[in-house]
Amino acid sequence: MMDLAAADRHLAARLPQGVLRPVAPAYLEEPRGRYQGQAGLIAAPRDLDEVAAVIRACAEARVPVVPRGGGTGLVGGQVMPQGPLPLILSLERMRRIRGVHADEAVMIAEAGVSLHEARAAAADAGRQFPLSLASQGSAQIGGVLSTNAGGVNVLRHGNARALCLGIEAVLPSGEILHDLKRLRKDNTGYDLRDLLIGAEGTLGVITGAALVLAPVPAESGVAMLVVESPEAALRLLSMAQTRLAGCVTAFELIAGQGLEFLAEHFPQTRQPFAVRPEWAVLVEVGLPEGLPAQDALERLFGAGCEAGLVSDGVIAQSGQQAAEVWALRETIPLANRAVGAIASHDISLPLSGVADFIREAGAMLGAEGDMRINCFGHLGDGNLHYNLFPAAGRQRGDYDAVRHDLSRRIHEMVVARGGSFSAEHGVGRLKVADLARWGDPGRLAAMRAIKAALDPAGIMNPGAVLSF
Amino acid sequence: MMDLAAADRHLAARLPQGVLRPVAPAYLEEPRGRYQGQAGLIAAPRDLDEVAAVIRACAEARVPVVPRGGGTGLVGGQVMPQGPLPLILSLERMRRIRGVHADEAVMIAEAGVSLHEARAAAADAGRQFPLSLASQGSAQIGGVLSTNAGGVNVLRHGNARALCLGIEAVLPSGEILHDLKRLRKDNTGYDLRDLLIGAEGTLGVITGAALVLAPVPAESGVAMLVVESPEAALRLLSMAQTRLAGCVTAFELIAGQGLEFLAEHFPQTRQPFAVRPEWAVLVEVGLPEGLPAQDALERLFGAGCEAGLVSDGVIAQSGQQAAEVWALRETIPLANRAVGAIASHDISLPLSGVADFIREAGAMLGAEGDMRINCFGHLGDGNLHYNLFPAAGRQRGDYDAVRHDLSRRIHEMVVARGGSFSAEHGVGRLKVADLARWGDPGRLAAMRAIKAALDPAGIMNPGAVLSF
Repeated sequence: MMDLAAADRHLAARLPQGVLRPVAPAYLEEPRGRYQGQAGLIAAPRDLDEVAAVIRACAEARVPVVPRGGGTGLVGGQVMPQGPLPLILSLERMRRIRGVHADEAVMIAEAGVSLHEARAAAADAGRQFPLSLASQGSAQIGGVLSTNAGGVNVLRHGNARALCLGIEAVLPSGEILHDLKRLRKDNTGYDLRDLLIGAEGTLGVITGAALVLAPVPAESGVAMLVVESPEAALRLLSMAQTRLAGCVTAFELIAGQGLEFLAEHFPQTRQPFAVRPEWAVLVEVGLPEGLPAQDALERLFGAGCEAGLVSDGVIAQSGQQAAEVWALRETIPLANRAVGAIASHDISLPLSGVADFIREAGAMLGAEGDMRINCFGHLGDGNLHYNLFPAAGRQRGDYDAVRHDLSRRIHEMVVARGGSFSAEHGVGRLKVADLARWGDPGRLAAMRAIKAALDPAGIMNPGAVLSF
Repeated sequence: MMDLAAADRHLAARLPQGVLRPVAPAYLEEPRGRYQGQAGLIAAPRDLDEVAAVIRACAEARVPVVPRGGGTGLVGGQVMPQGPLPLILSLERMRRIRGVHADEAVMIAEAGVSLHEARAAAADAGRQFPLSLASQGSAQIGGVLSTNAGGVNVLRHGNARALCLGIEAVLPSGEILHDLKRLRKDNTGYDLRDLLIGAEGTLGVITGAALVLAPVPAESGVAMLVVESPEAALRLLSMAQTRLAGCVTAFELIAGQGLEFLAEHFPQTRQPFAVRPEWAVLVEVGLPEGLPAQDALERLFGAGCEAGLVSDGVIAQSGQQAAEVWALRETIPLANRAVGAIASHDISLPLSGVADFIREAGAMLGAEGDMRINCFGHLGDGNLHYNLFPAAGRQRGDYDAVRHDLSRRIHEMVVARGGSFSAEHGVGRLKVADLARWGDPGRLAAMRAIKAALDPAGIMNPGAVLSF
């Protein structure tokens, strides 16, 4: 391993002018401030060949490579706080949309295109790119795929993985993987696309992708319905999917606690119900022409009431009202941040285990002491953001002694129920120990074998996903 | 490597009574009769532990293992005609459905459950398992996943890969991969599930799977519409998807040639049109309640006529009529068999390249001499079964000298257009040379590295997908 100055000289001699850049603090940060990256080298290649040249040069010199997209990840996959000084490989200059094939419902985007830009390009072509998440203004396609991002429309359209037909990538050897196919069906060998998707930059760098576009539904609408319990919410989901042939595009759980946080910290947000409910769901549908969404939602509301699942509700009567309902949902994470979580958990469970988990975890935490729980998220996917907050009048710091243990107990409850301790955020560096603890031994052994086979020198994002 | 008798003694000493079975001809065959398997050993384990014991014993003795499901594959993945005598690992006795979670829309099935049984179990629970293909009576879940099977409903529900949340498998080391999760979201490490899916038994043996169930649409219907050309068909598809919010569940191309073969060999099949059209499409829709499928199809018919895309059509007025339309589509492969193909091609193309390909391949073949083309299949997925037949009055054998060259030229045209030489059937043994010729070098190198890492002794289905 070379020292930094030698590595810099080695790379400068092998790369076109302008690829290497001065280190800047923005490349060393992550949103939650848990990790501080080390100041090594920064490269911002302009095209595939330059990415390959960077990786080849780093492989020769054994310089670790940390790929970086928008830097919005929440588990520290984008920063390397320890080990040898890395090269940070930013995809920010690969931001061409190479083609929008509206009739095929496919778009070819480079890794540095922001999710927002990709969505806008799809909209310009009369289609939608249905991946949607809070950080879409900054998050980039490469990062979104490398972390297999989720968001609010997974129920209908799947995670990032399901929205990708093919990728272009540079492997740890510097070899290029040309697999940017626009095919719905192609059974010609191992699925390397899905192996790199979700590998968080540890098996190579995704430089471009063929993305699936979806039709913009002729009719769409949103409702917020009050339900008695998470059980009732799940029965309502099943009813909705059956009635609507799987056309439910989002089904978000909202806890009364979340609405209370909103009232406290975002009083300007219009609350939909005079009496704050204990549980509500946001239901979004995207329907064929000839079936107005408001009618369909009204019928669902009626059927839900009749079945004793729904007690109150509002159905957006305009695009403006629909946007307001969504704004309420999307402000909850901001309200959470304003309150300051003791601990947050991005978990998923088999759908039929969700309600029991919420009840039993609540009971466990109630016995542990005074705190508030805001449990919200993508219920349709079994994905909860299960976040703990100080009791009113208490501080985050009051829980320092128990925070770690509480998280571990929550994760244990999740894993015991066949759930996941990282539903959509990934492993990064934050959950490496969790994966080592709870991962299936056969699966971990195979992961390590694949990592060693594709990246024998261990240069790609060392310390992420698997321990050094 | 031991000889057969020594391997038999080695395995018999390590396996519970009854796992090993006498060799029978049915285990050595494949449907098209291109390959004849070798008579080695047969094992039919009853559970996961027995499968692991078989693989461990074979790994110790370096006995090759050929996993076998229903044996319906069309590319010889299930038979090993050369090399050392293999053990054939039949999953036929692992045919339990371990659970149907209707509210979760998940089913856990063992590898030996037939696709038909899986579909029936889903239907009993008021759901559907939406994978549907001609051989579903025999094809087994393990094989369907190992080959990432497709079929007629891929357009709405995806290939087998998209219908699987988790797998249980035995790796080439004999280690068990416990990854039978029922989660829609789980980002905790590399996607080994999708790596084993489509690996055709070369990276391990799938023993069970968590399968996605879909709602049975409240309204469904079928139409057969006459279109002027494949271009018109594709524009109609785009129109249908936009109008129906992606609720088109099948979109099958039917060539006039196929209808003619039907008339010749299955004269009892009712032909829908008095004058045989050059091209038609079968459109199936699955819609929310409140939107009768016949109304939606009639409006689509009208809009298609108005746009100059559709000139005639029939819309099924009953379940009986819908079944007749499907029966017509499903009899085309039987009529093909009765005629006797010179060569058949399971290809896919980017949607916007399909029409040009059909035109240009037709021109190329027309210049080559006298033959008939039946080009049909899953147009919505860009997947064509592009099959060549003798001219009327001529025999299959008349084309022996040109058959191989024609196939190669067709595949070259497909690959040059960004298409695939194996859309849904896989590589097996039939297309190993094609993959070596047309596969991306970076992709092939990574595949070989992964194969060597997970199966260093090369015991799993040797000679399939990758050459020895």
